[in-house]
Amino acid sequence: MHTHEMIATHPDVRGNTNEALLAAIDAAYACAQACTSCADACLAEQAVAELRQCIRLNLDCADVCAATGVVASRRTGSNETVISGMLEACIVACGLCAAECERHAQRHAHCRICAEACRTCEAACQKALQTF
Amino acid sequence: MHTHEMIATHPDVRGNTNEALLAAIDAAYACAQACTSCADACLAEQAVAELRQCIRLNLDCADVCAATGVVASRRTGSNETVISGMLEACIVACGLCAAECERHAQRHAHCRICAEACRTCEAACQKALQTF
Amino acid sequence: MHTHEMIATHPDVRGNTNEALLAAIDAAYACAQACTSCADACLAEQAVAELRQCIRLNLDCADVCAATGVVASRRTGSNETVISGMLEACIVACGLCAAECERHAQRHAHCRICAEACRTCEAACQKALQTF
Amino acid sequence: MHTHEMIATHPDVRGNTNEALLAAIDAAYACAQACTSCADACLAEQAVAELRQCIRLNLDCADVCAATGVVASRRTGSNETVISGMLEACIVACGLCAAECERHAQRHAHCRICAEACRTCEAACQKALQTF
Repeated sequence: MHTHEMIATHPDVRGNTNEALLAAIDAAYACAQACTSCADACLAEQAVAELRQCIRLNLDCADVCAATGVVASRRTGSNETVISGMLEACIVACGLCAAECERHAQRHAHCRICAEACRTCEAACQKALQTF
Repeated sequence: MHTHEMIATHPDVRGNTNEALLAAIDAAYACAQACTSCADACLAEQAVAELRQCIRLNLDCADVCAATGVVASRRTGSNETVISGMLEACIVACGLCAAECERHAQRHAHCRICAEACRTCEAACQKALQTF
Repeated sequence: MHTHEMIATHPDVRGNTNEALLAAIDAAYACAQACTSCADACLAEQAVAELRQCIRLNLDCADVCAATGVVASRRTGSNETVISGMLEACIVACGLCAAECERHAQRHAHCRICAEACRTCEAACQKALQTF
Repeated sequence: MHTHEMIATHPDVRGNTNEALLAAIDAAYACAQACTSCADACLAEQAVAELRQCIRLNLDCADVCAATGVVASRRTGSNETVISGMLEACIVACGLCAAECERHAQRHAHCRICAEACRTCEAACQKALQTF
């Protein structure tokens, strides 16, 4: 990811970066990928029927994280209210997905790693939200 | 859009559809397209320098609407809190984008039509939110 | 969808619209929604284990259609090669998803409707591709 | 990004990873973020009117890269034709965006960094394509 150098060279930012928000952007992209992979890995498990709710939360979390990463990447003009709203939605989506994945963490390594990605993103978004 | 017939035939729904949510899904897809087009049309205007904030809000609104439409389309298991959070974020994004587009509605027809799409989506998401 | 009026009012288009491409954009958004819904409905079916390949193709088709609809909506400057490449990828994704959904069309109404949405989008993208 | 460990723990993969494809997935997510940021930074430049084509190519490249990263992340069942089609579209989008960004690389640091991200993604997708 080139998030830091890209945003640091934005004409309205000029090196004056919000580090907490940058960390949230990177965490959101990483979590979107992890949740996409976890939904796909759960779908391939023999016990797929018991993992439906996990797949649902994974897919929703992937979509919310992807949108959060993109919206939070923009610095032209201002749109703090929408960034805040997406950070809040992202915290909720990551928290619910992490809790479900943690229930399967011992049996499925992909759920364990995905839960960690969700908890990292949840915490990063909470820190970023406090800067607004 | 085939939203109604797709969701009406979901095994957990069986015709028992939430009409307000279905209307919000259709409005969100339509608003995502309108905001993508409006950002692109504003970018091509001679007065592009004065339309930066409009383009910013258009792009953010397109991303939030697209994620809302997808998340709200899912019926397997349950994830009401995330759907509510996205509907709330979508109401904010549409309201801000509409207000900005309305300022340019007389000069730019694409801003006028986009503002209408945003207001329709904002109202549809508010109605859907009341059903949760 | 407001695709026609949005693109017709773009400063570089001024009413001189590519109708085949407009139809492809609308079909791509509708197919993205249908495939998202079909993946979700298949996931809720008792026979989910037999529908894994269908869910996989549905999710891929939803992602390709969504990106195609957005890229094909832009008219500022020019990027015909990328639009063509996405239309081609979309034709392939829709054709494969339709063929798989058609296999389950008699048992699952959502697969029948989704297959129709895929075939409509496949045909619309083929027509649009011929205009490039 | 947790791409490697997520896909290595997929039940159908079991450590037997396609390293070239994994590199392409990471490069696609990073390029999607860089292009989103570059479009936004170009929009804030005083010379925005001269950067319209760059913004257009950035936005298209971001959308194509995002869809490529997601589709290439899935391993359940098989969908090689669609992955190949998206890798091809991504190579084209990255090549065009890089060429345009390189023209502004000396004046705008964000264009220089974005061009590098595009060239990295282009090369990674070409390598991945050869494994199919």
